[in-house]
Amino acid sequence: MSLNPQRTVAELKELRSLTGTEEGAQRVAWTDTWSRARAWMRGKLNELPVEVHHDEAGNVWATLRGAAERELLIGGHIDSVPNGGWLDGCLNLVAGLEVLRRFAAEGTPPVTVRLVDWADEEGARFGRSLFGSSAVAGTMEPDKLRDLKDKDGLRLQAVLAQHGVNVDRAHEAGKELKHAAAYLELHIEQGPVLESLGLPMGVVLGTFGVERHAITFTGQAAHAGSTPMDKRRDAFGAAAKLGLEIREIAKRHGGVGTVGRVETKPGIVTAVVGECVMTLDQRHLQAEALARMLMEAHDASMSFAMQEMVKVEWSRLWQIEPIPFHPDLIDLGDDAIREVCGAGHRLPSGPLHDAAEVARAGVPTVMLFVQSLRGISHNKIEDTREEHLEQSVAALDRLASKAIQWIVASGK
Amino acid sequence: MSLNPQRTVAELKELRSLTGTEEGAQRVAWTDTWSRARAWMRGKLNELPVEVHHDEAGNVWATLRGAAERELLIGGHIDSVPNGGWLDGCLNLVAGLEVLRRFAAEGTPPVTVRLVDWADEEGARFGRSLFGSSAVAGTMEPDKLRDLKDKDGLRLQAVLAQHGVNVDRAHEAGKELKHAAAYLELHIEQGPVLESLGLPMGVVLGTFGVERHAITFTGQAAHAGSTPMDKRRDAFGAAAKLGLEIREIAKRHGGVGTVGRVETKPGIVTAVVGECVMTLDQRHLQAEALARMLMEAHDASMSFAMQEMVKVEWSRLWQIEPIPFHPDLIDLGDDAIREVCGAGHRLPSGPLHDAAEVARAGVPTVMLFVQSLRGISHNKIEDTREEHLEQSVAALDRLASKAIQWIVASGK
Repeated sequence: MSLNPQRTVAELKELRSLTGTEEGAQRVAWTDTWSRARAWMRGKLNELPVEVHHDEAGNVWATLRGAAERELLIGGHIDSVPNGGWLDGCLNLVAGLEVLRRFAAEGTPPVTVRLVDWADEEGARFGRSLFGSSAVAGTMEPDKLRDLKDKDGLRLQAVLAQHGVNVDRAHEAGKELKHAAAYLELHIEQGPVLESLGLPMGVVLGTFGVERHAITFTGQAAHAGSTPMDKRRDAFGAAAKLGLEIREIAKRHGGVGTVGRVETKPGIVTAVVGECVMTLDQRHLQAEALARMLMEAHDASMSFAMQEMVKVEWSRLWQIEPIPFHPDLIDLGDDAIREVCGAGHRLPSGPLHDAAEVARAGVPTVMLFVQSLRGISHNKIEDTREEHLEQSVAALDRLASKAIQWIVASGK
Repeated sequence: MSLNPQRTVAELKELRSLTGTEEGAQRVAWTDTWSRARAWMRGKLNELPVEVHHDEAGNVWATLRGAAERELLIGGHIDSVPNGGWLDGCLNLVAGLEVLRRFAAEGTPPVTVRLVDWADEEGARFGRSLFGSSAVAGTMEPDKLRDLKDKDGLRLQAVLAQHGVNVDRAHEAGKELKHAAAYLELHIEQGPVLESLGLPMGVVLGTFGVERHAITFTGQAAHAGSTPMDKRRDAFGAAAKLGLEIREIAKRHGGVGTVGRVETKPGIVTAVVGECVMTLDQRHLQAEALARMLMEAHDASMSFAMQEMVKVEWSRLWQIEPIPFHPDLIDLGDDAIREVCGAGHRLPSGPLHDAAEVARAGVPTVMLFVQSLRGISHNKIEDTREEHLEQSVAALDRLASKAIQWIVASGK
């Protein structure tokens, strides 16, 4: 039995019918719809000569024993955001299922091949993404999660217990990586780069490091009619200058920089803005460049604050270092894409993925991206051409074979 | 009996004790506290040889009959915003009371002198300012007011009826201006200009024309991590550029321009802004310059929208033409200020005042401003030095005499 990428597309549609509504995918982790999606997947896996088990973090592992104990891992997540797209996360998994079928049909593979369905990649219900993969990677801190509540006030700890997960024991799932020699993940790009280049697929260099801050400029609220221009301490003036400079900084360094939220106080049409809070999100694949971007933004904010005679305060919301993928696997991924699609591209990932957690745990990792139409995801209009989906299954399959050869050759 | 400006300061403090709390003045129009303030004023007027009556719009007129039917009007408003200052509006009235006392003490003045307490200048309860003066000026539209509700859901029409005002008959108060030959109003500046010049007082050239608009830039919300800088349609980028340009336009034309509120959607740290709504408030004393300021802002918004590949839409919130005061009275006001304070200044008024409505009705009008400490009003920390308050009573008194001479001389 050979690889059948058309079947993957058909199965993705089947999953969509089973777990979606007119508003999109509803496979939010730790809900009945998510359990239904996992049961559907379990039914598919039961047709293969694989062992299936849940680990302590709620991840589901399907293991096809190979000649060696060393393991090739292929991962994805069947959970979605509410009103999500039909491909985000589950493409990885359903394509991995097809690759597993191909290996199983060929007999015993040279190394063990495992397919993992990570629990709660999206964090849609409790606001904490990468739950299962961070537990396995050892970066999850139970104390920060236990008391998180969903919008109905239900605690994470209680809801997870209903799904057989004890948040304090989730880290024990780390043992699942004991024999891991390589980790592969296919994902829709969720951005516009491949579509703008006219390419079906690209190999991912790593995930961006992120600096996320709230910046507050404080001037003086004043009457819009009675306060001459040269008597103002206009907090929005400083914020506007910084908002524009953030973009120039990102361009200079080849990263991205975003001001996503701006709030003005008192926020009325007849008053100069006395206080302006803006959020900043800067990302880069190189830690040094990201540090420089942050420093330049900081310096610019001080300089604009001085010009506008306002105060500026920074408060860090979140940060994560860049996580580069494995250079050998990047090359193999690029080869696989070029063989299937005729052309390839190397690009960073802006969003985080389970792959980043696995890479942080020291497992050689790479991802493949397939084009997203209009670059849109987390939305019911998320889509990818079927021919590209089929190519992506074929490229993942080729990469899996190349990775096995690499594992065997490198003795990893 | 001669003018006693110290008494005015003492009476302002008396009014503050009677109608203020620790949070500031509470003389909101159409409330019991406002009625109490008016009763206090009525008590003061009852000691003078004046006729007092309410007009159809709830304004209170105190008339000191003169040798001629022609009238000099002096006006103010005893209502305040909630948690307001101790001087805004009532200084005008209490100073006018002192001037009326001086005229009464001297016998029959050459023309009739009237003091008017305008009803609901602030519009604090129903959101419609200049109620009484606009009724008198004939610019009030009852259909737009009748159904306004306060924060407790009470209708304007019903609340005003409790205070003896029928909103549909308010315009009949227009007859009060029949013999008006000049209108004078003293007010705190509510801005920082006089304080920054080190001057106690200035004469007001007129009230600014105002253009008030909401401007919406619509781009494309996009993932802050996966969307390269050159693939963005960043609505906040266009808004930031316009926010900065608005200030340059105002400076070029000698007016003011303010972006008071900025809203971003989806407004989250991880998304490029898809939609940005900003408010614009432009003011100038000359109609042509204001029109040019608006046109330049409009052109700039189109140009920035093109640069950022976003759409822009404008929606007018409100406008009013500039209202210039009378050149002869401006000169007389300037003279009076120089005689009392040693130096003067001519400045426009950013805020509107009852004087603007009276001027619109064709009555020769002028205002005097007295310095506001820190330029702050509509706040319990609103303040003016007592020596400046006393000078302002003296300057209003001198201006009243000059205006009477002017009325007599011009035969108006």
